[in-house]
Amino acid sequence: MKIISLKDVATTVPQMDGAQGIRKQVPLGVADGIPTMSVRVFTVAPGGHTPFHSHPWEHLNYILKGRGVLRDGQGREHPLTAGDYAMVSPDEQHQFRNPSTDAGGSGEELQFICLVPKERE
Amino acid sequence: MKIISLKDVATTVPQMDGAQGIRKQVPLGVADGIPTMSVRVFTVAPGGHTPFHSHPWEHLNYILKGRGVLRDGQGREHPLTAGDYAMVSPDEQHQFRNPSTDAGGSGEELQFICLVPKERE
Repeated sequence: MKIISLKDVATTVPQMDGAQGIRKQVPLGVADGIPTMSVRVFTVAPGGHTPFHSHPWEHLNYILKGRGVLRDGQGREHPLTAGDYAMVSPDEQHQFRNPSTDAGGSGEELQFICLVPKERE
Repeated sequence: MKIISLKDVATTVPQMDGAQGIRKQVPLGVADGIPTMSVRVFTVAPGGHTPFHSHPWEHLNYILKGRGVLRDGQGREHPLTAGDYAMVSPDEQHQFRNPSTDAGGSGEELQFICLVPKERE
């Protein structure tokens, strides 16, 4: 049994081709002996995005705060709002984007839970 | 790819021995072709609780709103607050409780995400 708040979880800046303005936290993962899937949280700065890619495993998502879009393989941008649930199926191209580009820096962050099989944490 | 808000997800009242005041929703599950784990949401009325039990699969949780406790196999009650993440390991006894018993009915609901392997949805 483990209970943790996100403010107590270490933050890393993943180095991924095609990613920009991304921070990553893993509140529940391999280090906790997770059996099946790892719970990761990504925070995307205004104007930032995850890679536009595909892979043979799924994403299960919950939008914690902010607004963004989920881009699909046809380039369509599906709106995401805090409180939404999303699934990206295996082998489906996708990209999470925070389209805010407020030059004054007041644009809101997009933050979301993203579960993956633990081998892909 | 699927995106859905909880307000658009059907609600059921699960009939489980030892459960009280529980509503269930499945925003992402077997009906969506989920590959590995299903995303369920439970809403627990003030004074309600899930069964006190164990099973050979894990729970992955995120507390969406309210406050509650996660009772462990030794009867200890660990506080839960909106924004917390929790993991219950396989074979670990557990119970989610909403201890609010405000007779006036103004007690807050406890609502949380609870992932399980899809076979246990």
